[in-house]
Amino acid sequence: MIDPPSLVDQYCHGVLRTELGLGTFEAQLARTEGPPAPGTTLFDTQTGFAVRRWCPPLLGLEPHCPPARYLARRRELGTAEASRRLLRGSGITAYLVDTGLPGDLTDPGELARAGQAEAHEIVRLEQLAEQVADTSGTVESFLANLAESVHGAAAHAVAFTSVAGLRHGLALAPEPPGAGEVRGAAGRWMAARGAGDRLTDPVLLRHLLWIAVASGLPLQLHAGLGAPGARVDRTDPVLLTAFVRATAGLGTDLVLLHGYPYHRHAAHLAGVFPHVHADCGAALVRTGARAATVLAEVLELAPFGKILFSRGARGLPELHVVGAHLFRAALARVLGGWVSEGAWSLDDARRVATLIASGNAARVYGLS
Amino acid sequence: MIDPPSLVDQYCHGVLRTELGLGTFEAQLARTEGPPAPGTTLFDTQTGFAVRRWCPPLLGLEPHCPPARYLARRRELGTAEASRRLLRGSGITAYLVDTGLPGDLTDPGELARAGQAEAHEIVRLEQLAEQVADTSGTVESFLANLAESVHGAAAHAVAFTSVAGLRHGLALAPEPPGAGEVRGAAGRWMAARGAGDRLTDPVLLRHLLWIAVASGLPLQLHAGLGAPGARVDRTDPVLLTAFVRATAGLGTDLVLLHGYPYHRHAAHLAGVFPHVHADCGAALVRTGARAATVLAEVLELAPFGKILFSRGARGLPELHVVGAHLFRAALARVLGGWVSEGAWSLDDARRVATLIASGNAARVYGLS
Amino acid sequence: MIDPPSLVDQYCHGVLRTELGLGTFEAQLARTEGPPAPGTTLFDTQTGFAVRRWCPPLLGLEPHCPPARYLARRRELGTAEASRRLLRGSGITAYLVDTGLPGDLTDPGELARAGQAEAHEIVRLEQLAEQVADTSGTVESFLANLAESVHGAAAHAVAFTSVAGLRHGLALAPEPPGAGEVRGAAGRWMAARGAGDRLTDPVLLRHLLWIAVASGLPLQLHAGLGAPGARVDRTDPVLLTAFVRATAGLGTDLVLLHGYPYHRHAAHLAGVFPHVHADCGAALVRTGARAATVLAEVLELAPFGKILFSRGARGLPELHVVGAHLFRAALARVLGGWVSEGAWSLDDARRVATLIASGNAARVYGLS
Repeated sequence: MIDPPSLVDQYCHGVLRTELGLGTFEAQLARTEGPPAPGTTLFDTQTGFAVRRWCPPLLGLEPHCPPARYLARRRELGTAEASRRLLRGSGITAYLVDTGLPGDLTDPGELARAGQAEAHEIVRLEQLAEQVADTSGTVESFLANLAESVHGAAAHAVAFTSVAGLRHGLALAPEPPGAGEVRGAAGRWMAARGAGDRLTDPVLLRHLLWIAVASGLPLQLHAGLGAPGARVDRTDPVLLTAFVRATAGLGTDLVLLHGYPYHRHAAHLAGVFPHVHADCGAALVRTGARAATVLAEVLELAPFGKILFSRGARGLPELHVVGAHLFRAALARVLGGWVSEGAWSLDDARRVATLIASGNAARVYGLS
Repeated sequence: MIDPPSLVDQYCHGVLRTELGLGTFEAQLARTEGPPAPGTTLFDTQTGFAVRRWCPPLLGLEPHCPPARYLARRRELGTAEASRRLLRGSGITAYLVDTGLPGDLTDPGELARAGQAEAHEIVRLEQLAEQVADTSGTVESFLANLAESVHGAAAHAVAFTSVAGLRHGLALAPEPPGAGEVRGAAGRWMAARGAGDRLTDPVLLRHLLWIAVASGLPLQLHAGLGAPGARVDRTDPVLLTAFVRATAGLGTDLVLLHGYPYHRHAAHLAGVFPHVHADCGAALVRTGARAATVLAEVLELAPFGKILFSRGARGLPELHVVGAHLFRAALARVLGGWVSEGAWSLDDARRVATLIASGNAARVYGLS
Repeated sequence: MIDPPSLVDQYCHGVLRTELGLGTFEAQLARTEGPPAPGTTLFDTQTGFAVRRWCPPLLGLEPHCPPARYLARRRELGTAEASRRLLRGSGITAYLVDTGLPGDLTDPGELARAGQAEAHEIVRLEQLAEQVADTSGTVESFLANLAESVHGAAAHAVAFTSVAGLRHGLALAPEPPGAGEVRGAAGRWMAARGAGDRLTDPVLLRHLLWIAVASGLPLQLHAGLGAPGARVDRTDPVLLTAFVRATAGLGTDLVLLHGYPYHRHAAHLAGVFPHVHADCGAALVRTGARAATVLAEVLELAPFGKILFSRGARGLPELHVVGAHLFRAALARVLGGWVSEGAWSLDDARRVATLIASGNAARVYGLS
């Protein structure tokens, strides 16, 4: 009854090119601090159950088949062929890919070819800054190169993404840091950093946010679940309120990614501020059979023109499959339920489904 | 199966007397910081969809008809006649009206006549204080006049309401401020204020709360959603815990309005403290098709004798309609569901429905 | 379809040996600050309705019968006989009993005999420390006796439980306090305390947590609802994040009790940290007809091997009955629903039901 014809995934990552054993596959099912507790397995999670529900049929097996059998079949096909079948079975028409994660992951072009879909690049600000620092000898050259890199990225990417919340928490001072402050922070950071050190300085994180805002490209902000061992309340999107207010009217759209377990707060901000949008997908991969409820909670306060689908998937093509299937099923269940009760008209439900699945992303990211 | 015979709306506002165009009507559907984002409309919200579901039939149109058609019909009838039809279609038997909002809004008497119902006044403390300040020359006269005005208001109003949370946040010191502290704050405020300046000083906000508590009239406290651009966590009702404890046993009832997205916290306070009550209605207008779930979340911890219905509607008679319809439908669905499952008896469900719809309000506000 | 064969209640208390009248029975239905508001009753709560639903049939009455009739029948049978019938009707196979509450409560042995089940002791750290202080003359002997008592308790108890969150809040410094700091705090506390004074000093609370962690026995931490008049956000389990990180890899399991209304946060911690587990039962007794939703919210992020059932019941055998019935019904509804939708296989659902009902507790507490 309600099945949007195309899906734009506004935030995902590439998939692993390497072959995976049972343990390495399992480790990709969740983001944890350490291996599963003795006597337990990460397959016994909503994500694990959803993978076993939706993926085996795409590789010619029964739904819910045991993990070992599934992985045997996956190895039999080979990683490349399994990925192709899985990605093509996920029904995505466009991928927006954050290329800022380490690991042997496919780039947007490979993802596009494997999935027979469009792919666009999202540039991760913190990684960009780290790369610039690696090749800049002085603070002055670092700051100049950084501005140029952001400017250059804005010409080919469809969005910037910031993990400032995961690196430092979202309780950042809302205004742009002063030039002297930025120079001081950059100097200290560059002097102290070793190879591979990550950017966590709050002044530099804010500087990045503001040069991204100045670029006019949509800016995605990670909120809610993210860095597994960090306090999740430090990424409550409500902490962004002052920053959101400071960036209102500048012409740059903000997109709050993930949000869960504070997705109602993200939806509230999307309802109040014209330039704020809320993600409704990344939490679904994590909450599996509960996806319809989580989606419905986002649909309480967020205007329907401000909600965007994503999967947040990384590493496993299985997570891409699950993200898409759970979203379609949740959307059909939630909106279809409201139609059955007489609360919504079917026409409206179909229109809203299309907005969330692809229309809003097309408008915000300027996709054709 | 479950349909309470009368509804007392424990918190609403008057409706606009002026005729509205598509844009001005749309702007009343939500409380935002700025106009809708380009390419989006506030009709595409739970509130907008609920208005289109419930209001057109009251004006002789099909449910879900397009906004433009609905507004044409509304203009054809004229604002007064449309308001009458809508208000009479909302099934309210008594309105408790906060008269402290600016704008060309109907007063309680007009609302009563248009809606063929009783109406009672709720006095907004901060507005009362601002009016008193406008006509008081000195700090001493201001404080004396304020005490007298609160005393006078207590004679004709059914409740006081405070927006201290929206003005300053609910993290206020719990005890009454000392007399010297109040005089100092009043002096500074009166010296600095221009015409129309709003009261935001925390000492004076607390002073108001405590003179209201001393009056013995029920005191409504805004919590959760409210001032659109403010941090919503600053109005988490949990921040009121110490104030609630400080006012226990004084004989004055507190009513936590709205609460969402912290309505579970408000329900908890209503469960723990004998003098605390929780609103269960204002969030329904905002969450539309999700109203049954939001109501059910309030019903987790709040004792059934401590939950009161309201709509929080302002400006549009359509919001009054929607608030009442969503509440009735949610109540029937939630309580009826529990009866069907065998968890509750039908008699109990009907009794609880009547308590929430009108009985608790009659007891707390002393309505006949 | 889904009905686990045995239930291990990982956290409960004894039941009152004394006969109860209507008022004293009612007072046990909730934890409040003061008697019910005039015109209301604690029977009009989810807990009250659940008691009236499930308990009368066990005493030969109709479900939902009026409280007075139920209590008359209870008196007719006598407290001991009524308790026996109720406890045997709750279908528990093993009780883990926190013996640290005051009052005329049955001990684990009596509970076991009355309920025809196993019973094991949980030692409450703060009460143990108070008992040790009562019989220790000096700081040195207190600290030595405390270490010995914890060591001794670890030999016969199945777990320690801490109410540090209810006494002080969970925002405790994560690391073990230094020996000098502990001696200083103990000295001040012992000098100041009168008979019966409760331990609330944060340094001593942390010291207790760390000597419990060193024992290797599972450590239960109260989170969420607890001390009725305290700020509930002070027991948000997210505040434990740093302590959880500090105790990772030491070989001691942590179990977050209760959690509601922050149960999604507790589930998140159970998902991230191998040694953390989440309780899924105590909130059910409080939320009654909403139990299935609350359980489902825990099942979003917590791995299924990390969720443990409890009832948190105290005082009334009726709460034991209700906790068990609500859990069984919620489990059948939630998991059964996912099976019906095709999201889970029936085999998986049954396996997960058994894990949550008893398997995980058997593993964590080393029950046979």
